[in-house]
Amino acid sequence: MGTSRLEAFSDGIFAIAATLLVLEFSVSHGSDLGHQLLHLWPSYLSYVTSFVTIGIIWMNHHHTVSLIGRADRTMLFLNNLLLMTVAFLPFPTKLVGDFLHHEGEKAAVLAYAGTLVIMAVLHQVWWQYARRNRRLIDDGVPDSALSAVDRAYAPGVPLYGSVFALAFASPLAAVALTFAIAAFYLPSAALFDR
Amino acid sequence: MGTSRLEAFSDGIFAIAATLLVLEFSVSHGSDLGHQLLHLWPSYLSYVTSFVTIGIIWMNHHHTVSLIGRADRTMLFLNNLLLMTVAFLPFPTKLVGDFLHHEGEKAAVLAYAGTLVIMAVLHQVWWQYARRNRRLIDDGVPDSALSAVDRAYAPGVPLYGSVFALAFASPLAAVALTFAIAAFYLPSAALFDR
Amino acid sequence: MGTSRLEAFSDGIFAIAATLLVLEFSVSHGSDLGHQLLHLWPSYLSYVTSFVTIGIIWMNHHHTVSLIGRADRTMLFLNNLLLMTVAFLPFPTKLVGDFLHHEGEKAAVLAYAGTLVIMAVLHQVWWQYARRNRRLIDDGVPDSALSAVDRAYAPGVPLYGSVFALAFASPLAAVALTFAIAAFYLPSAALFDR
Amino acid sequence: MGTSRLEAFSDGIFAIAATLLVLEFSVSHGSDLGHQLLHLWPSYLSYVTSFVTIGIIWMNHHHTVSLIGRADRTMLFLNNLLLMTVAFLPFPTKLVGDFLHHEGEKAAVLAYAGTLVIMAVLHQVWWQYARRNRRLIDDGVPDSALSAVDRAYAPGVPLYGSVFALAFASPLAAVALTFAIAAFYLPSAALFDR
Repeated sequence: MGTSRLEAFSDGIFAIAATLLVLEFSVSHGSDLGHQLLHLWPSYLSYVTSFVTIGIIWMNHHHTVSLIGRADRTMLFLNNLLLMTVAFLPFPTKLVGDFLHHEGEKAAVLAYAGTLVIMAVLHQVWWQYARRNRRLIDDGVPDSALSAVDRAYAPGVPLYGSVFALAFASPLAAVALTFAIAAFYLPSAALFDR
Repeated sequence: MGTSRLEAFSDGIFAIAATLLVLEFSVSHGSDLGHQLLHLWPSYLSYVTSFVTIGIIWMNHHHTVSLIGRADRTMLFLNNLLLMTVAFLPFPTKLVGDFLHHEGEKAAVLAYAGTLVIMAVLHQVWWQYARRNRRLIDDGVPDSALSAVDRAYAPGVPLYGSVFALAFASPLAAVALTFAIAAFYLPSAALFDR
Repeated sequence: MGTSRLEAFSDGIFAIAATLLVLEFSVSHGSDLGHQLLHLWPSYLSYVTSFVTIGIIWMNHHHTVSLIGRADRTMLFLNNLLLMTVAFLPFPTKLVGDFLHHEGEKAAVLAYAGTLVIMAVLHQVWWQYARRNRRLIDDGVPDSALSAVDRAYAPGVPLYGSVFALAFASPLAAVALTFAIAAFYLPSAALFDR
Repeated sequence: MGTSRLEAFSDGIFAIAATLLVLEFSVSHGSDLGHQLLHLWPSYLSYVTSFVTIGIIWMNHHHTVSLIGRADRTMLFLNNLLLMTVAFLPFPTKLVGDFLHHEGEKAAVLAYAGTLVIMAVLHQVWWQYARRNRRLIDDGVPDSALSAVDRAYAPGVPLYGSVFALAFASPLAAVALTFAIAAFYLPSAALFDR
């Protein structure tokens, strides 16, 4: 079985998850609107961070799938689990927006960072399953392309693990670090460092 | 009339329905957030179960459509009804998440299982309509490919019927069985047992 | 300018609007869930009616676009207005589900039928603009294919106009008629009566 | 790296953002529904304005990408930021619908106009980055096609800047001007003035 169906389904999930992030914003009648809009800054921060993260991870996922020539049952299941964590991201993103700078911010950012750690672990497992002994790799792909993806994916789990650890000391700094990873590390990874 | 339009519409519905599942999660200010997040476990369970189910059913639907060479008016209508039950799934999924382990859990899981039974029945009717006397089957498709799909679809209605029956005895066990079907039975079905 | 971009945008809008319909359903804790689920029947009815309507209109739109060879500025704007009414449908669908059999049912069904009338008018205007003097029609398309679409689109405005008129006498009958149109009239229209 | 993946992701975001606009509408039981529906006119106005704006900007984005032959890391990041403002639009659209003609209308329309200004600035930066010294432009594209896009994009920032300024004097007039831009200026821009 080829990978085009898997790709189309994945593309849809990534784009929809990114667009659903906007549903985290809400205000109410009664108190000054301008004031409320300024106090939404944690929501803006978590929105930007998650949107950029999803956009870049989608690009990396897409690049990696282009190296894969066929899918099997296990691959399909791993891909489903990976997409499930991507589609889940709007919920912890909303938690960060609602609770940062309020009672409960540590639990909110731990849920956010925890989701990203699980996503990075699944992305790594998904890739290693396809790559080990070139199990599902397309015949025309050189080993150097595989090593490039290896190098790109290797820091993912430690980086998001650091975000998780940092959340205990400073939830705000942990979200800022997540944004920095999306802006500076991810775009350089699988797609550009070859 | 060919099937590519029917396929594109179906693809969209499957991916969007899976992504909308995340809207079932919600927490409130006021009580401890970490505590609330742990008590959301029925929502995590129903989210994972429905997401994996939709993902695999989409793959099977896609595989089956690849055997079909043309669509007629009845086929179109049946496909619409099938998609309608898929797009409906986020609602009973939310019911399970909100009511499992609370008053009303039996009604919630019966609504969930009932939706899955209807989906399995429609999937079977949809397939049998296309397959009977090779009514809509592409000329190049061997009979063995049709028998493979027959074998794959046959257990669907009895399996989800068992989930429905089990919901009377134990709503939680019924949801766990649904997850097991998605993880172990569905991926082996139409796509992989040839 | 060709029509493939217009088609891709339209496809997305149709599929997403159909899937968002599920957000109309809601229940609350406190009273018996089984009882609440049975009393949601107006929501089930409006959901099924709108879903089937969107599915079939999408198919007809897609068929018609396949006859069109190029788009101009006016065409683009008319298509945008048409999509806007399709994307609006989840709101009056929710109104029907929430208010049918309650105070306000006439206003709800009039809003629903009114949206469908506007959609039918825009679909007609959109088609006539492209078809008049074969303004945007692909050169290879025979006149008979155009007449078939003419015949298919002609009853749309009168039919939905009747739904609107019927809503004054019986809101429930008006919704039932809308369902009958989607199930029996629409699938026979542009796609199958050639 | 080519642009087809970037295009598919962008297409999805535009279509989904436009369709999510419908979630801004809501009514309540208790007071007369017909009355409530008439008083929703600010929501209809902001819905139509944002829907038409997104539809046309999508077309222009698509046309511009067709001139671009390859993407680099910076391009990807700029495109992500641009899509992020498009996907954000449902929130300020809802603000305008909820607050126009009520306390807080100035803040609501400033948020709306501000989002459009940022979108226009990012669209301009995104284009200039690709176009400067033909950095990412496809070899076969003539300079005249680039100048046409230059002319099309030049008035964007001043126009939406005027909307922003006008919002201080009259929030309603600012929204009406935004609609006029979408109906009259945008469709004539990159796609049609060649």
